Amino acid sequence: MSILVVGSVAYDDLETPFGKKERILGGAATHFSASASFYSPIQLVGVVGQDFNETEIAFLKQRGVDLSGLQIQSDGKTFHWKGRYGYDLNEAQTLETHLNVFANFNPVLPQHFRKSPCLFLANIDPTLQLEVLKQMENPKLIAMDTMNFWITSKPEALKKILKKVQVLMVNESEARQLTQERNLVKAAKKIRKWGPEIVVIKRGEYGAILFTNDFVFSAPGFPLEDIKDPTGAGDSFAGGFVGYLSKHNGRLDQTDLKRAVICGSVMASFQVEDFGLDRMRHLTKKEINERFQAFKALSHFEENLII
Amino acid sequence: MSILVVGSVAYDDLETPFGKKERILGGAATHFSASASFYSPIQLVGVVGQDFNETEIAFLKQRGVDLSGLQIQSDGKTFHWKGRYGYDLNEAQTLETHLNVFANFNPVLPQHFRKSPCLFLANIDPTLQLEVLKQMENPKLIAMDTMNFWITSKPEALKKILKKVQVLMVNESEARQLTQERNLVKAAKKIRKWGPEIVVIKRGEYGAILFTNDFVFSAPGFPLEDIKDPTGAGDSFAGGFVGYLSKHNGRLDQTDLKRAVICGSVMASFQVEDFGLDRMRHLTKKEINERFQAFKALSHFEENLII
Repeated sequence: MSILVVGSVAYDDLETPFGKKERILGGAATHFSASASFYSPIQLVGVVGQDFNETEIAFLKQRGVDLSGLQIQSDGKTFHWKGRYGYDLNEAQTLETHLNVFANFNPVLPQHFRKSPCLFLANIDPTLQLEVLKQMENPKLIAMDTMNFWITSKPEALKKILKKVQVLMVNESEARQLTQERNLVKAAKKIRKWGPEIVVIKRGEYGAILFTNDFVFSAPGFPLEDIKDPTGAGDSFAGGFVGYLSKHNGRLDQTDLKRAVICGSVMASFQVEDFGLDRMRHLTKKEINERFQAFKALSHFEENLII
Repeated sequence: MSILVVGSVAYDDLETPFGKKERILGGAATHFSASASFYSPIQLVGVVGQDFNETEIAFLKQRGVDLSGLQIQSDGKTFHWKGRYGYDLNEAQTLETHLNVFANFNPVLPQHFRKSPCLFLANIDPTLQLEVLKQMENPKLIAMDTMNFWITSKPEALKKILKKVQVLMVNESEARQLTQERNLVKAAKKIRKWGPEIVVIKRGEYGAILFTNDFVFSAPGFPLEDIKDPTGAGDSFAGGFVGYLSKHNGRLDQTDLKRAVICGSVMASFQVEDFGLDRMRHLTKKEINERFQAFKALSHFEENLII
């Protein structure tokens, strides 16, 4: 099944303890697409300015991303984010944000996108997420992300969109902020009452945990000796997760959901190995399959009784 | 195989958001013993004062703990710790510490303890850990814990004892402080160069991760809706980990080490369900086996290739 993704396409300036990069391809929709494209065909809806480079277009096309929904505004510049990470790599410090053409983003879906069976609403204004959903014909699977800014500024719209999605994917602090619950089991239970039957909580280097009504599944972070740039890890995770589910016809049974969490973890673990999308540019299916097996070695154990 | 444990036996006053308890049984050696006793016979070396209650003695004996090495000083009081946890439950705030008889603890091993094949050196002064080791005849398996205080105040003695143990079990911040490495893969590598071939890093609600020269294994924290009191979770973990290994003759192969990490996680997950040692008082082998299986459901996935 193909996946429609709506979200930011950006240029990032990044500083981590391991280097400094300027004007590299970033944005939630971009990171999601690059990752998910290893599993399913992608349709991207976003906006960029006249400064957006042909080589980026070529890269996304080469990854099988349909860019019919990418608006190119000739009178503006692409969304630009400048951030810095310290040694702990968990929290980015935003140095500059220039929304540019993204400030007035009005997502309009090309006709052939509206029938997409699978939708990922990356982190954008929940009122825009609702607008996108209105244009869709009958999506089978809808997953979404959000962030602290919208939790604070648009709680009503957020509650409305939550009612309409199957999967919410947020990080730990967002889950806590949204529910005012410190305990994640309770937080996930609360969120599930608001709509999404599946809640995936991303925990950075600690991995991810998925909650449904029937079971809980926890995936470790992959222990890497060198993490160059954590930017986009959450969106790469979402790409692997939704990409896997979409590849398997949007089935939400226990076996597939667990495997989807591992696929998300696999993709995020590659994402952080290099700056921006550099690791995705030469990633192979063989490497993905190998790391999937490495996750098994990392977390499986012999299961006969212990005492 | 029996396990000799040397460490603190204490009374704790505890305050968590879920209640307040005074003078309940605590201490690293006690928590370790209660947990490990589900797997192996325990020999405890520690010190208490005249105020130490007969009912505590009875509880430990009933759990199969040999108390021949428990010194009872009639002219002093038992080590007493008073602590408080906020809603995040990750960090205890120490309100009072009265070392009392523990201040001059001089661990002397009864003759029949010296042949013990397995030794756990709970968190005490590394010079005392060295003293204990000198009294042992030929232990097959030695594991130890330490803390920030000794890392700062006794680095030389700590390096000496590290050379002589197979397993170091510390929490994340201690591993980082000890090695001056933020990255845990690098931190574990550094520690392994100093002696212990196995490094287990405890990560509180995020679980635990084990490093050897050959493999890495990650266990999730068990997602609990109600955590009443995190005190002793680390020592309960150590009890399950060392207890399992000792039950299986101290074998350190991959299969057993992975299962040992899960046993540690299982015991820690029970430990935090009630105050002090209360959960351990009525825990059953059936519950332990069931939670072991629950860890499997929480972390295993179907492993055929994904793309």
